[in-house]
Amino acid sequence: MSSAPRSGFFNNDDLALMVDLYELAMAQAYWESGMDGDATFSLFFRKRPDHRNIVLACGQQHVCDVIRQLRFRDEHIERLRKLDMFRDDFLAWLRDFRFSGDVHALPEGTPVFPQEPLLEVQAPVAEAQILESLVMNYVHLETVLASKALRLVMAAGKRPVVDFGMRRMHGLDSAYRGTRAYRIAGLAGTSNVLAGQDFGLPVRGTMAHSFVQAHDDEMDAFRTYARLYPDTVLLVDTYDTVAAVKRITEWLREDKDARISAIRLDSGDLAQLARDCRQVLDDAGFEDIKILASSGLDEYSIAEMVADDVPIDGFGVGTAIGSAKDSPNLELAYKLTEYGGQPRMKNSPGKQSYPAAKQVFRQSDAQGRVTGDVIAHRDEEAEGCPLLVRTLHQGEPVEGAIASLDDICDYAREAVERLPSDLRALDRDADYPVRISDRLKQIQDDTLKQVMPED
Amino acid sequence: MSSAPRSGFFNNDDLALMVDLYELAMAQAYWESGMDGDATFSLFFRKRPDHRNIVLACGQQHVCDVIRQLRFRDEHIERLRKLDMFRDDFLAWLRDFRFSGDVHALPEGTPVFPQEPLLEVQAPVAEAQILESLVMNYVHLETVLASKALRLVMAAGKRPVVDFGMRRMHGLDSAYRGTRAYRIAGLAGTSNVLAGQDFGLPVRGTMAHSFVQAHDDEMDAFRTYARLYPDTVLLVDTYDTVAAVKRITEWLREDKDARISAIRLDSGDLAQLARDCRQVLDDAGFEDIKILASSGLDEYSIAEMVADDVPIDGFGVGTAIGSAKDSPNLELAYKLTEYGGQPRMKNSPGKQSYPAAKQVFRQSDAQGRVTGDVIAHRDEEAEGCPLLVRTLHQGEPVEGAIASLDDICDYAREAVERLPSDLRALDRDADYPVRISDRLKQIQDDTLKQVMPED
Repeated sequence: MSSAPRSGFFNNDDLALMVDLYELAMAQAYWESGMDGDATFSLFFRKRPDHRNIVLACGQQHVCDVIRQLRFRDEHIERLRKLDMFRDDFLAWLRDFRFSGDVHALPEGTPVFPQEPLLEVQAPVAEAQILESLVMNYVHLETVLASKALRLVMAAGKRPVVDFGMRRMHGLDSAYRGTRAYRIAGLAGTSNVLAGQDFGLPVRGTMAHSFVQAHDDEMDAFRTYARLYPDTVLLVDTYDTVAAVKRITEWLREDKDARISAIRLDSGDLAQLARDCRQVLDDAGFEDIKILASSGLDEYSIAEMVADDVPIDGFGVGTAIGSAKDSPNLELAYKLTEYGGQPRMKNSPGKQSYPAAKQVFRQSDAQGRVTGDVIAHRDEEAEGCPLLVRTLHQGEPVEGAIASLDDICDYAREAVERLPSDLRALDRDADYPVRISDRLKQIQDDTLKQVMPED
Repeated sequence: MSSAPRSGFFNNDDLALMVDLYELAMAQAYWESGMDGDATFSLFFRKRPDHRNIVLACGQQHVCDVIRQLRFRDEHIERLRKLDMFRDDFLAWLRDFRFSGDVHALPEGTPVFPQEPLLEVQAPVAEAQILESLVMNYVHLETVLASKALRLVMAAGKRPVVDFGMRRMHGLDSAYRGTRAYRIAGLAGTSNVLAGQDFGLPVRGTMAHSFVQAHDDEMDAFRTYARLYPDTVLLVDTYDTVAAVKRITEWLREDKDARISAIRLDSGDLAQLARDCRQVLDDAGFEDIKILASSGLDEYSIAEMVADDVPIDGFGVGTAIGSAKDSPNLELAYKLTEYGGQPRMKNSPGKQSYPAAKQVFRQSDAQGRVTGDVIAHRDEEAEGCPLLVRTLHQGEPVEGAIASLDDICDYAREAVERLPSDLRALDRDADYPVRISDRLKQIQDDTLKQVMPED
C-alpha cells in the first residue's frame, strides 16, 4: 500500500474499487461456500429525517447506469490481490463480473415514506452484496438534495429559486449530480455550467463583489457588464446598496442604450433593502427591473419574505441547500429481505425490518388526492397505484421503465401536489398513513420465529 | 442545451466546466476591458462554525494539483459558445488557459482560525477569478471533513476510530477525498478500498447482517468467515447478541484451529452489551478477543463511553462523520484583497474583510505551547512562526513546499497537541487569540476611506 495519493481526483475508471471491503469479503465467502442463490436487498429508511415531511426519491436512474457499467479491470484485481485476502479464483470471478440481476425502483421524484423500498436489487447474493455502498451513496446523495431543494421550492411558491451552491457542496460529484436532483425538485436554474448544461437546468450567473472591487469606481464595473451582457443583473451591495441603486437609475435615464434586467442584493437586511431599492427603482420609472436576493437564504427566511410580500422576484440559494444543512443525512439501509426464495430479516434492537420483496401501493380519493400507502408483498394485489417499476431485468434496461428528465420533473411536481397539504409544512411534522399489508405482517411474524435461535 | 444527461458520472475531463457562470462572465469582462493586473484572492472564513473550536485546514494540495491541470478543451469551448454570451477571442483565451500565478497556502493539517487565509491565489485577475468555485469546493470539503474527524479522534483518545461512512457521504468524490482528510485528522482505518489504498489508510472490513441472515444458522456464517479470514471480526447482533457471543466462545473452545480477533456490536445499548460480552469472553478465557462497536456513533457518544471506561476497543463511525452532520458547512469566502498592487475590500454589512496579501504568525511560549496568532501583511515581520508557504510560483510547484502525506499527518497531530488544551472541548466554545497587526488595520482604514464613494 503506497502512501502517495495518485491524484486529487476520484477517477470514474476506478468505480469498482469504491466499495466497502466487507462487501468483497462477504462476496468471496458466498462464492467460496457455493451460496449462489438469488437475494433481494431492499433500500429504505426507518425514520423520516428531521424536518422532512416529504422525502423525494432520487438517484435511481444513476444507480442503474452505474450497476450496468461496473467492471473490475486488471489493475483493480492487482490492487485487491495486495490486500492478501482474496483467492485467485474469486478474483477471476470479479474480473468477469457483470450484473445479471433485476432492479425494481420507485420512479425518481416519487415522495417516499419510512419502510418503503426506494429500490430493490434482486440477484445472486454475491452480486447484490458488492453493490451495497455504491447503490446507497448514489440514492442517498440525490434523495437528500432533492428533498432539501423541494423545501426551498415550496417556500418560494411562484418565485424562482436558483442554485448558487457548488462552492460549498461536498465535492464535485455532489455538485454535479445534485444539480439534476435540484431540477427534479423544481429549482429554476443553477450557476454550475457543466451540470446545468448536462441536466437541462438553465445556467445563471451575475457578478461577484470582487468584480466591483477590482474597479476604482463601482459604476465602471456596472457599465462594463451592461455593455457586454445586455439585460444583465448587477450586484449592488458592495459598498452602499441604496446609493448604488440610485446611481444606476441616474445612469439608465441618461444612457438610453443601457439596459439591465435586475439587481441582486447579497447582504444586510434583505427585506428592508428590497423595499428601499424597489422604491428607488419605481420612483425612477424602472418598475420592470427585478430584484433578486441571495446571502445565507434558507427555506425559513424565504417563506418569511414571501409571507411578508417582500418585493424580491427570485432567490439564489447556496450553502443551506448544497449540503442539506439542517438534515444532511438520510438513514438509508440496504437490507437483505429474501434469500433463496425465503424471506429474511434481522432482529437487532430498534432495527427490525420487514422481510420479502415488496410493492408500494399509493391510494387516492375520488379527487385524486393521495390518502395513504400500503406496503405489500411484491406478488400481492392491493388497492391503489403500484409504485415500484422494474428498471433492470437480467442486467439489461427494461424498455420504457426510465422516463426522460422532463417527464420526471412533471411527475415529481404532480406527485407532490397530490399529497395531503399538511405535508407541505416546513417546521411541523405531519403524519402520513403507511399501512403494512396483512400478508407482509404474517411473513414477518413467521420469519421472526424461524430466525430466533432456540436457546 | 440538451435535457439528456450524458451519464451518471462527473467526468474529470470536464473539470474546467465545473465553474460558476459568473466567474467566466467576469473573466471575459476583465479581459475585454484590458484589466489584466495581478489580483490576490484570499480564502478564509469569518466565523468559526458551530461546535468547532479547531478547524483543520485541508485540501490545499489537491487545489494546487487541480489548478495546474485545468484546461478548457475544444469540446468545452463549443459548449460555452452555446451559452451565447462569450466572444470568439475570449474563448480562444480560455482555450489557451494555463494558470500562471502563485499560490500561498497553510500547510495541510494546520489549525486555522477566523479571518486567517487558508490559501491565497495571486494571478492576473481573470485567471484567479475563474478558479473561485473550484478552489472553494476542494478546500471546503476536505477542511469540513478533517475538522469533524478530528473531533472523533479527540473523543476516542487512544482507541482507534475507523471510517465506515462511504455509503452516506455526499457522492463519490467526497468519499474519496474525505478519506485523505480523515487520515490527516488521525483516523486509524477506512472501509473504502480505493481511497484507503490511494491514501495509505489501512482498509478494514468485517461482515454485514445480511451475511448472517443469508445463512440458516448464524454459527454457519461465523464458521465460514473465520475459516476464510483468520483473525476476523464477527458481527454478533443480528438476533441476540449475548447468546451469539456465548455460542462463539463454545465453538472456539471446541475448535482449537478457529481464531477470531474481535466481535462487533452494531445496535442496542452498546455500553451495556459491551460489558456483558466482555464478561462472557473473559469468563471463557478469551481476554484477547476485542470488542468493536458501531451504530450511529458520534463524538459525544464515544466520549461518554471512554469516560465510563466501557470495554470497547475501537469505534466504527459512519453517518456522523461522513457529512459532518452537526456542522456540514464552513462559511468559506474567496475574496479579492488586492488588485493592481492596491489593497481592496468590500463594505457589505456583516461581511467586512481585511485587504491585502497576508501572512499568519503563530506564537508559542517557552514550552512550545501555542499562545495565539497575528494576522499581518505578507511583507511584514512579526513574532512567531509564519504559517503560509508559497506552493505554486508562476504556475509551477515550488520544490519542497508540499509535504508527504506521512509528514502532513505527523505535523497535524503535533500542531493540534500544541494548541491551548481548552480548544479540545467538544461542546464548549473556547477562545483563541487572533490579533490583526497594526499595519493591516491601518491598510483597512485607508482602503475603507477610498472605496466609500463620496455622496
